[in-house]
Amino acid sequence: MSILVVGSVAFDDIASPSGSVKNILGGAATYFSLAASYFTRVRVVAVVGEDFGPDQEKVFHQHGIDTRGIERANGKTFRWGGSYADNLNEAKTTFTDLNVFETFQPRIPNEYDDTEFLFLANIQPTLQANVRRKMSGVRFTGLDTMNYWIKGTPKELAATLKVVNVLLINDTEAKMLTGETNLPRAAQKVLAMGPQALVIKHGEYGATIFFREGAFGIGRHPFRAPALPIEEVKDPTGAGDSFAGGFMGYIASQQELNREVLKRALFYGGVMGSFAVECFGTERLQQLTREEIDARFQVFRELTHLE
Amino acid sequence: MSILVVGSVAFDDIASPSGSVKNILGGAATYFSLAASYFTRVRVVAVVGEDFGPDQEKVFHQHGIDTRGIERANGKTFRWGGSYADNLNEAKTTFTDLNVFETFQPRIPNEYDDTEFLFLANIQPTLQANVRRKMSGVRFTGLDTMNYWIKGTPKELAATLKVVNVLLINDTEAKMLTGETNLPRAAQKVLAMGPQALVIKHGEYGATIFFREGAFGIGRHPFRAPALPIEEVKDPTGAGDSFAGGFMGYIASQQELNREVLKRALFYGGVMGSFAVECFGTERLQQLTREEIDARFQVFRELTHLE
Repeated sequence: MSILVVGSVAFDDIASPSGSVKNILGGAATYFSLAASYFTRVRVVAVVGEDFGPDQEKVFHQHGIDTRGIERANGKTFRWGGSYADNLNEAKTTFTDLNVFETFQPRIPNEYDDTEFLFLANIQPTLQANVRRKMSGVRFTGLDTMNYWIKGTPKELAATLKVVNVLLINDTEAKMLTGETNLPRAAQKVLAMGPQALVIKHGEYGATIFFREGAFGIGRHPFRAPALPIEEVKDPTGAGDSFAGGFMGYIASQQELNREVLKRALFYGGVMGSFAVECFGTERLQQLTREEIDARFQVFRELTHLE
Repeated sequence: MSILVVGSVAFDDIASPSGSVKNILGGAATYFSLAASYFTRVRVVAVVGEDFGPDQEKVFHQHGIDTRGIERANGKTFRWGGSYADNLNEAKTTFTDLNVFETFQPRIPNEYDDTEFLFLANIQPTLQANVRRKMSGVRFTGLDTMNYWIKGTPKELAATLKVVNVLLINDTEAKMLTGETNLPRAAQKVLAMGPQALVIKHGEYGATIFFREGAFGIGRHPFRAPALPIEEVKDPTGAGDSFAGGFMGYIASQQELNREVLKRALFYGGVMGSFAVECFGTERLQQLTREEIDARFQVFRELTHLE
């Protein structure tokens, strides 16, 4: 099955205790599509500027990613700079130049009309909802968002939550969205807002998926996937989008959507996030093999598996 | 097998968003011994004052806990007051009256000489090491400590770490002990200080056990146990000691010490911690059955178990 991701393609400057890089290919849609490409066919809707050339395009094409939805606009591509201090948990943004991304209006090529799986990466919630409404063939939609929209456009976000199947956010975002400090209670509040499932990403502690009662016919017991203890995190940028790429990509690759598929998807999300942080930018995601991915899946599995 | 715990018995005043209680039985050795009593025979070495009466003693005896090591001293029992704000992650100490605990010198009754498993709850590190040295029959020792000793008596703690098998601490303590913000790297530093294994407790995210290369003949791959997402945490007091009680109690109940036993022990630790926080003080730990414990063990297992 094909999965379509709508989101940002960017150039990033990143500094971490392991070093620094400038002008590397980034953006949520980039991390997502590379991660998902190991599981299924991927289509991208994004906007780039005149500085996006064949070198960048090649990164997508080498992974069979359909870039017909990447619009070229006059001006520069979105640029972001961030630095990570010692604990690597939070990026300090050094600059954000939205450039052509500022007026991004997602346009879906007609060739994408048969898309069944959709991931709405972090953009303005009404734009996200509009994409979902346009795509009548979609049967499973994942959503990302961030503090900026939770605080700034809560009504628009609430409307978007009603038209998606699963929301993927982190602990802080879940607490901010619900005003609830207890995570399982926050999860119940989020599920009452619309989605059938909620993935809360705990960073180095893994992730939990919560289900609305009766969703997917699988009951409401949550499920947890661990994260791998990693001794050297070089660059956490894109870990969440890579997680989403593994999670959604695996789901799109399966015939059925059931509890076991969602559980494995959560593990594959963690696996792709763990690869992403090993190198700067998308470097590691560009050079993986499915064998490496499945070997790490086994490591994740054994990390919590009792005989 | 018998396990001996050396630590505090106390009376606690506790306030949390779920209510408040005064003068309830607490202390690390109390939580530990109740939790461990569902797995094995437990012996306690502690000191109490004249205010410790038959009602308190009954709590231990109802669980078959050997209290011959609980010394009665003139004066009052250790008293602690703490309150928890909304997030429940950290207790704010409202008062600490050490009372008879201030001059606690653990005395091991002769009847305890055949003890094979030992847990040194959080007391001054040199007292902990002295107990370990006196007990020549012990073959497996667990250790707890806290920020106060990590900062205040680092040399004494370092000496104690050399005579124990496993240290159980939380994320913050592991980072403080090693000056390392990355947990797996912190773990390697702790293991280099002496213990064969290190359990790092992540609170609501579970726990990870790290092994020194070659320890127990099982390689150095870490193992993780999840924590149960709990919608109502009434009182987090004693969660760590209850975790230790489940972990050490299960180990003491097994014939062999191997990787699978340590993995299951980590799960049982999480199970006992999850029960402890459901009610104030030791109320829930007093009323459990082994069937309830094993049912929750299955829930923990299913929380991360792939088909």
